[in-house]
Amino acid sequence: MTTLRVDRDRLWGSLMELKEIGAYQDEATGLQGVRRLALTDADAEARRRCVEWMLEAGLEVRVDRIGNVYATRPGTDRSLPCVLMGSHIDTVATGGAFDGTLGVLGGLEVMRALNDAGVQTLRDVEVGFFTEEEGVRFGTDMLGSAVTAGRIPIEHAWQLTDPDGRTVKEELERIGFDGPAHELRPVPHAYVECHIEQGPILADAGVNVGIVEGVQSISWQRLTVQGEAAHAGTTPIGSRHDAGLVAAHVVVQARRMCDSGDYGQLRATVGNLDLGEGQTNVIPHHAVLTVDLRNPDDELMTRAEKDLAEYVDGLAQAHGVTVEWERMAKTAVIPFDPGVQALLEATADDLGLGYVRAMSGAGHDAQEIAAICPTAMVFVRGEHGGISHTPREYSTPQACGDGTDVLANAILRLANQPGDRPGQQSAPRPQNQS
Amino acid sequence: MTTLRVDRDRLWGSLMELKEIGAYQDEATGLQGVRRLALTDADAEARRRCVEWMLEAGLEVRVDRIGNVYATRPGTDRSLPCVLMGSHIDTVATGGAFDGTLGVLGGLEVMRALNDAGVQTLRDVEVGFFTEEEGVRFGTDMLGSAVTAGRIPIEHAWQLTDPDGRTVKEELERIGFDGPAHELRPVPHAYVECHIEQGPILADAGVNVGIVEGVQSISWQRLTVQGEAAHAGTTPIGSRHDAGLVAAHVVVQARRMCDSGDYGQLRATVGNLDLGEGQTNVIPHHAVLTVDLRNPDDELMTRAEKDLAEYVDGLAQAHGVTVEWERMAKTAVIPFDPGVQALLEATADDLGLGYVRAMSGAGHDAQEIAAICPTAMVFVRGEHGGISHTPREYSTPQACGDGTDVLANAILRLANQPGDRPGQQSAPRPQNQS
Repeated sequence: MTTLRVDRDRLWGSLMELKEIGAYQDEATGLQGVRRLALTDADAEARRRCVEWMLEAGLEVRVDRIGNVYATRPGTDRSLPCVLMGSHIDTVATGGAFDGTLGVLGGLEVMRALNDAGVQTLRDVEVGFFTEEEGVRFGTDMLGSAVTAGRIPIEHAWQLTDPDGRTVKEELERIGFDGPAHELRPVPHAYVECHIEQGPILADAGVNVGIVEGVQSISWQRLTVQGEAAHAGTTPIGSRHDAGLVAAHVVVQARRMCDSGDYGQLRATVGNLDLGEGQTNVIPHHAVLTVDLRNPDDELMTRAEKDLAEYVDGLAQAHGVTVEWERMAKTAVIPFDPGVQALLEATADDLGLGYVRAMSGAGHDAQEIAAICPTAMVFVRGEHGGISHTPREYSTPQACGDGTDVLANAILRLANQPGDRPGQQSAPRPQNQS
Repeated sequence: MTTLRVDRDRLWGSLMELKEIGAYQDEATGLQGVRRLALTDADAEARRRCVEWMLEAGLEVRVDRIGNVYATRPGTDRSLPCVLMGSHIDTVATGGAFDGTLGVLGGLEVMRALNDAGVQTLRDVEVGFFTEEEGVRFGTDMLGSAVTAGRIPIEHAWQLTDPDGRTVKEELERIGFDGPAHELRPVPHAYVECHIEQGPILADAGVNVGIVEGVQSISWQRLTVQGEAAHAGTTPIGSRHDAGLVAAHVVVQARRMCDSGDYGQLRATVGNLDLGEGQTNVIPHHAVLTVDLRNPDDELMTRAEKDLAEYVDGLAQAHGVTVEWERMAKTAVIPFDPGVQALLEATADDLGLGYVRAMSGAGHDAQEIAAICPTAMVFVRGEHGGISHTPREYSTPQACGDGTDVLANAILRLANQPGDRPGQQSAPRPQNQS
């Protein structure tokens, strides 16, 4: 069997080139970061660069109606379902060079390596990038992959708005990525996504590669607290309806729940807390905050959500405020396909690369695509404790190369499988929970 | 001795007319409120209306270099120091019809009542309004009165900026209230300010009038927390440097200190808490919050500030963040003149009006003017627990009339005092602490 080796310098060069698009100087870290929110001008420029690279590699490029971009390297039997690689190139506002991008440019490098080796595959091989994975601009993460997997109807996705009121559809049209291909893509034979770990597990284990068993449960909720404005100097403490204080209690309690150990490996983050136009001498009458909960155990996640809601009910009563909850997103634990995982392990073994198995703490496009075909992920080690969503995010050329080598050889094996089931898969097809 | 009675309908009419300038529809309460921030177009229109009324009452109007406006009714001996009434007509963003305005339009009504009664006073009587009492737009409250009393140099005041970077001086010039009069006004014989209580003490005592003993200590500080952005899903709880969480702990702790009883009648309010451009799935790296502390006891205020600072030091260490403190404002407890208080009490007694003595929970222009002349205040009862800084702020025509009657007759007595000391004043002149 052919063993592919990707060109690590070429891969690194592409990563370093793409991070200049949307570059900004980060005040907090003093480093150059990447701010490439979905469907902005920076994202559009990065998309065009990737399409150029795809065309240079001789691939067939198509864009679908939600702006997902796919590039195909034809196989000998084009009637068979393809094998698909991919990830995303949009970033958060304080992003780095690797999150998402590695899976896309790694997939592109696999195509180049297949070309260099003159390999002819049985099945088509595709690499794609999905629209608005981060959810930072339009409020719904994994948007493009969720639409293509059929979880989110395209009409709903199109009308989502950014903070300035611009819709996804308007922005797709504006940047010229409102493609003609149907958003419900042909079902692949298998999907493999290579991504930085964004955590410390691989570094702690001393390996560059992780085989991902699944994605933990993710819950995003928005709370709107309505209290009453009143004078800071004259209003007795017991007469206050302080929306900001209630919001602060929620932040502190969410962390207390993580520290308690009662909810397993619960992680809670309040990334937004907005008091509107605040005034130093006025008790805040309004607060909006988001609560991001993660848990690798569905039952413990349900308990955490329920207990937090009960705590907030008590707070609202004690402080005489109202609280409205809005469900922004919720996904159950998503287990990846055991067959594809086994194939990835065998590939890493054959390449002589150490690896560990791990659950993903972050959400990924793979959790959406897992609903339509056998799916798994390759993790790549990050430095500095695996920190991500900051310009400090960093993976070494060595780690990026190792992960992409596993991707390349796993994809080659999958692309030459004649049957309609990859690896030794036998588990039932996983389903997302909306 | 002449007893003046103000025209309550005329006073109420002026109050209701002025509240239309800067009117807005308040979403939280469903009521019409007043949003007339200092030196905005709305403030300029209200200033011009007041000046028209002053001129209609035959008064001599002058504007000083910080935009304070004074209107004089001449006495028989113009070489003697005048007696001064006044307050402010700027409001917070969620203001009502009475805060500040009652003292200005009440003072104007006193002038009209003196005219109607054909009274000739020994001393000049003046009514004025001071620029930017609320401090909401340019960040420093009691700005105009602090400048006129010499605590804040005018060069400093002029260059203060609003959130859009516009300076006080530019805005004074833009609205045409950059007057020629020197900002350090002639020292008055006495100053009396009529103001709504903005608290529940008068209503609880069943009276319409309060004689104010002084203003509690006020401390405004701004905290800037610098943590580190990181991924919400993958960053272990123990590795976080969450600026938003630290800010929330400060909010909760400030309230806990109020509830503890260890700091007397401490009141703490966090009116601003800004995480910048928040993202649901990113740990906040930056938080800015303001802490407003009030205490009628200087020693307990000092202890509260010190203990809060120590708490924050511990938090910063525990969470691996840095916290910068900025002093926005600090005033010690300001006792009002016992002589003027006694004269106000005697006046209320003679009018047959019930009253209580009270400390002021809010800051007022009177605390600045107290640094240059004998000063006291008349409080007027507010409904709904005295709630203020919201469109629900309300005082009855009866209460406004009672307070203004006390103001009118006290001013009349002061204006006919031949000596250079009002009432039986003997206490040393109070001094503000900057």
